[in-house]
Amino acid sequence: MTVTRPGRRPGNSGSRDRILEAARELFADNGFGETTIRAIATRAEVDAALVHHFFGTKHALFVAAIALPVDPDDVLAPVRAGPVDEIGPRLAAALLGVWESPHRDAIVAVFRTVIGGGGDVGLMRTFLLDIVFDEIVPRVDHPAGTGALRVELVASQMAGLMVTRYLLRLEPLASLPADRLVAIVGPTLQRYLTGDVG
Amino acid sequence: MTVTRPGRRPGNSGSRDRILEAARELFADNGFGETTIRAIATRAEVDAALVHHFFGTKHALFVAAIALPVDPDDVLAPVRAGPVDEIGPRLAAALLGVWESPHRDAIVAVFRTVIGGGGDVGLMRTFLLDIVFDEIVPRVDHPAGTGALRVELVASQMAGLMVTRYLLRLEPLASLPADRLVAIVGPTLQRYLTGDVG
Repeated sequence: MTVTRPGRRPGNSGSRDRILEAARELFADNGFGETTIRAIATRAEVDAALVHHFFGTKHALFVAAIALPVDPDDVLAPVRAGPVDEIGPRLAAALLGVWESPHRDAIVAVFRTVIGGGGDVGLMRTFLLDIVFDEIVPRVDHPAGTGALRVELVASQMAGLMVTRYLLRLEPLASLPADRLVAIVGPTLQRYLTGDVG
Repeated sequence: MTVTRPGRRPGNSGSRDRILEAARELFADNGFGETTIRAIATRAEVDAALVHHFFGTKHALFVAAIALPVDPDDVLAPVRAGPVDEIGPRLAAALLGVWESPHRDAIVAVFRTVIGGGGDVGLMRTFLLDIVFDEIVPRVDHPAGTGALRVELVASQMAGLMVTRYLLRLEPLASLPADRLVAIVGPTLQRYLTGDVG
């Protein structure tokens, strides 16, 4: 027997959607670290165990909530595995690797939606700050306190490539082989991460 | 006596709007150089003299069509006045100067609309390629054939600052004084323009 609430669709599909919606709202408003599975479950009016059942970890729930086709943890593995003085080129290669994959359209769509105002800027900010930057900032925080700015400068260069190469499709940039682009922007990223940023 | 066409609003305001609409369509489809005042007048069903009367030059019509609050010619004047080995910092300072001015909201709005899909990517491409890049590319085309890529790399860094500083408002980047930002990204732009890009 299924118990349904008035005004709610019954069944697992409705619960799953409510969890994703609640997760998007809370991650966007409060960031990743401050958002608990319990709070998401409460807002979605489900049991916390159901959230774990559907999504596993909070990290996996975030990836599902932002509708990313790949797990940032996997993408960033080669960056994590390398020395600090190679983060720039490794990061460029890792990101361009995903952007050149069959996932490109989905990623560009998320980006367009957020920038265009149809998506949630808070969610994108949480994604960048808490998921992508979080593990890199401490590694490049020299002198102390510069890490966040360094990583945001890197984000600015890579976001701009998303705009010019994939959205505006400016030629010849749009058709430049990815390895040539890594060779060109890698040193830029490396300077932002470990060079002098005033 | 005013002669009106069926289905058209009478008077100057209707003509002006039709001219702007025709201009947007033709600039987006055919680029700036290939679009004539005559063709715009024909599409708008007005006399070419009326286009000149309302907007003066084709350049001024383009600026009106894309709803830019400032004339790129004025913004780029300091870049034009300087030597090639200073284009990077001068360009960064010129663009950030406008973006930090009261025109910021209007410029960010145009950018958001185009990127989000509500505006015309073709029009933005025409604006960049034919209006902004056109005078810079020949100056940095060494070795011959590299000029367009160089300028597009510059565009990628500056577009990314638009995204991260003004749209996502990532801190501390969003609050960094403009002159410090020019000191940081200026050398990046200069390397793209006159350094080795493979």
